[in-house]
Amino acid sequence: MKTGKGVEWAAHSCALLALLPTGAALPGEALADFLGVPTPYLAKQLQALSRAGIVSAKRGATGGYRLSRLAQTISLWDITAAIEGTAPGFRCTEVRRRGPCGASSAECSEPCTIAAAFNHAEATYREALSAVKLPEVVASVTKDSTVSRQASIRAWIQEHAAYAS
Amino acid sequence: MKTGKGVEWAAHSCALLALLPTGAALPGEALADFLGVPTPYLAKQLQALSRAGIVSAKRGATGGYRLSRLAQTISLWDITAAIEGTAPGFRCTEVRRRGPCGASSAECSEPCTIAAAFNHAEATYREALSAVKLPEVVASVTKDSTVSRQASIRAWIQEHAAYAS
Repeated sequence: MKTGKGVEWAAHSCALLALLPTGAALPGEALADFLGVPTPYLAKQLQALSRAGIVSAKRGATGGYRLSRLAQTISLWDITAAIEGTAPGFRCTEVRRRGPCGASSAECSEPCTIAAAFNHAEATYREALSAVKLPEVVASVTKDSTVSRQASIRAWIQEHAAYAS
Repeated sequence: MKTGKGVEWAAHSCALLALLPTGAALPGEALADFLGVPTPYLAKQLQALSRAGIVSAKRGATGGYRLSRLAQTISLWDITAAIEGTAPGFRCTEVRRRGPCGASSAECSEPCTIAAAFNHAEATYREALSAVKLPEVVASVTKDSTVSRQASIRAWIQEHAAYAS
């Protein structure tokens, strides 16, 4: 059950966008610079977040990315699903129906215990990530940061945030 | 969080081996035939299960695979870990330490909320799969199968099981 780097970068991007003042947007280059990640690859994650309705992008001089809905409605699962998709991790290929003793359709009305167990395990994973919303992530950045780092983040945002005229 | 086909095949293999009479082993070809999967690819999964101490293989005319410990001590997580490994699905690359406002070592004594949330979600996934032991899987095969399918499985095992002389 591997999760790609893109999920980590998308989550940090959303956490930073959650710190923007109302009406502000952040250019993709600035966002990538803040996170110390390559702009083109981050752009792919931002496009996926945009397709999922988590961020919105505005082009032009005063353009950039912003959250397209309230931070408290955005969970780490929403972000993971936007980047990795929502297909089940375990794909049941109905092994029980194959071979010399293969089960009949009538015997397969319920998913087999193996598939059911993986479906349940994945549901607990989704629920755990769904319970963590962006404000909780942002709060921890503040909690763990010195006053001077918090000030430098605020100053950086003030310098790089773009406002629609 | 994708899980490879090998996990499904390994789980079905262990469920079948759990049905063997004491002292019996099942040749890899027969196991692959029962499951309707390619022998060479299944052999790789069986090797991984063997390395993890879940099955043991004996060569020769009376050789084959058997569970190397009691079925009730083998969970779907044990099987998944044997095939996919136990590396965390989410790899934290400490994004918070990068860029113009990167956090200091002192500010990173705890994992960030994002990494901690994924670690917790993966723990719930592991716990859910650890709770499902082989006897539960085998019981459901019996529950969902007609009497005639159960009889054909017993007959197939009797025909293909190898016994050390």
